[in-house]
Amino acid sequence: MTVGKVVGTVVATRKDEKLVGSKLLIVQDTELDGTLLSRYTVAVDAVGAGVGELVLTAAGSSARQTDVTKNKPIDAVIMAIVDSIEVHGEIQFQK
Amino acid sequence: MTVGKVVGTVVATRKDEKLVGSKLLIVQDTELDGTLLSRYTVAVDAVGAGVGELVLTAAGSSARQTDVTKNKPIDAVIMAIVDSIEVHGEIQFQK
Amino acid sequence: MTVGKVVGTVVATRKDEKLVGSKLLIVQDTELDGTLLSRYTVAVDAVGAGVGELVLTAAGSSARQTDVTKNKPIDAVIMAIVDSIEVHGEIQFQK
Amino acid sequence: MTVGKVVGTVVATRKDEKLVGSKLLIVQDTELDGTLLSRYTVAVDAVGAGVGELVLTAAGSSARQTDVTKNKPIDAVIMAIVDSIEVHGEIQFQK
Amino acid sequence: MTVGKVVGTVVATRKDEKLVGSKLLIVQDTELDGTLLSRYTVAVDAVGAGVGELVLTAAGSSARQTDVTKNKPIDAVIMAIVDSIEVHGEIQFQK
Repeated sequence: MTVGKVVGTVVATRKDEKLVGSKLLIVQDTELDGTLLSRYTVAVDAVGAGVGELVLTAAGSSARQTDVTKNKPIDAVIMAIVDSIEVHGEIQFQK
Repeated sequence: MTVGKVVGTVVATRKDEKLVGSKLLIVQDTELDGTLLSRYTVAVDAVGAGVGELVLTAAGSSARQTDVTKNKPIDAVIMAIVDSIEVHGEIQFQK
Repeated sequence: MTVGKVVGTVVATRKDEKLVGSKLLIVQDTELDGTLLSRYTVAVDAVGAGVGELVLTAAGSSARQTDVTKNKPIDAVIMAIVDSIEVHGEIQFQK
Repeated sequence: MTVGKVVGTVVATRKDEKLVGSKLLIVQDTELDGTLLSRYTVAVDAVGAGVGELVLTAAGSSARQTDVTKNKPIDAVIMAIVDSIEVHGEIQFQK
Repeated sequence: MTVGKVVGTVVATRKDEKLVGSKLLIVQDTELDGTLLSRYTVAVDAVGAGVGELVLTAAGSSARQTDVTKNKPIDAVIMAIVDSIEVHGEIQFQK
């Protein structure tokens, strides 16, 4: 999974019918301490994430293993909201 | 999913029989404000997208989860046309 | 899908038994006008492509969605031969 | 599979319900001798790996082929703990 | 598929039970003439490949389509040993 921060939203009226009701969020990759990197992806939210939160994103077919993404043309899902990240015994990020 | 702009079309007469009727579009990656990047992919259109439109593309097995791409040798599908993109409360792109 | 040019062949006598009869071609990535790039992949041919032709390649599980690649340990398939590519109304490539 | 070192942990209270009980570890890519590289991923542990151990990580749908990851929205799993790595007859890493 | 050379082995006693009996080889990417590149992957051997041989590796779910890798948490498999590679009519590699 990838660590990233929710930074925005995408509105798309015309889309595959299976996507109706899916919330499309922009997730920007981050370092483990939450520092923003230049890469981003558009992911469907499965956990009620909001802008500003650090999240984990799963990609590929694994993105379709939640109740809200099953069998949909979606290749990235937010499946967890990060509370804290610890590396070598030190807290890198704390919500 | 990836944000990109439809910039062109591919014509291919000789192709796997499952691809007959599939519209092959060239999608160039963009920044969130629509600025073109140098990467592109060829994707099948599932939503009636046209040249010049900003779209979302799903890749891998997820690309086969629409009615028009099911069970086909296709690894990228346009599954949404972007109306607007908002980042940190500011509109980055508006159709 | 990726645009590339067939530039060569791989011969492999010792291989998984499911691969017997599969033609292994070397596909070099190209720009949309056919200019060769430095990346290449080895793909199974599903459409009778020959050296020198511009083709589309599908990767991952999508590569197994043709009759000749079904259920085989193959992660790239040539599923179309490109006739022409048009970008912003201009022909970039014509066979 | 990718060789990496377990360097930390992620705590996430709010997550897809299928993830309850899954241990989320931060795996940093390494050279074959265990030298740390700058890339990392978050993976679910399927083998009882601990911080400091060199491990193998499988990505994509293959990450869902263990008992603890089956049908879950998980795209990376630690499926082996490395004892030793030998390259050209020389030991590069020994636990 | 990717062209690479088998350069070493990984020993892992503690691993997912499905991996018992799987031979884990280190495959270093090469140019088409066999020149070593800096990328490598760990792949399961499905064809009896040995150190020093040039091989083809399939990645992702396709890596699970051989008898020895079926349903296992494995994302790369050696599915062919290269005898020769020909590009633009010239032999680049000959075993």
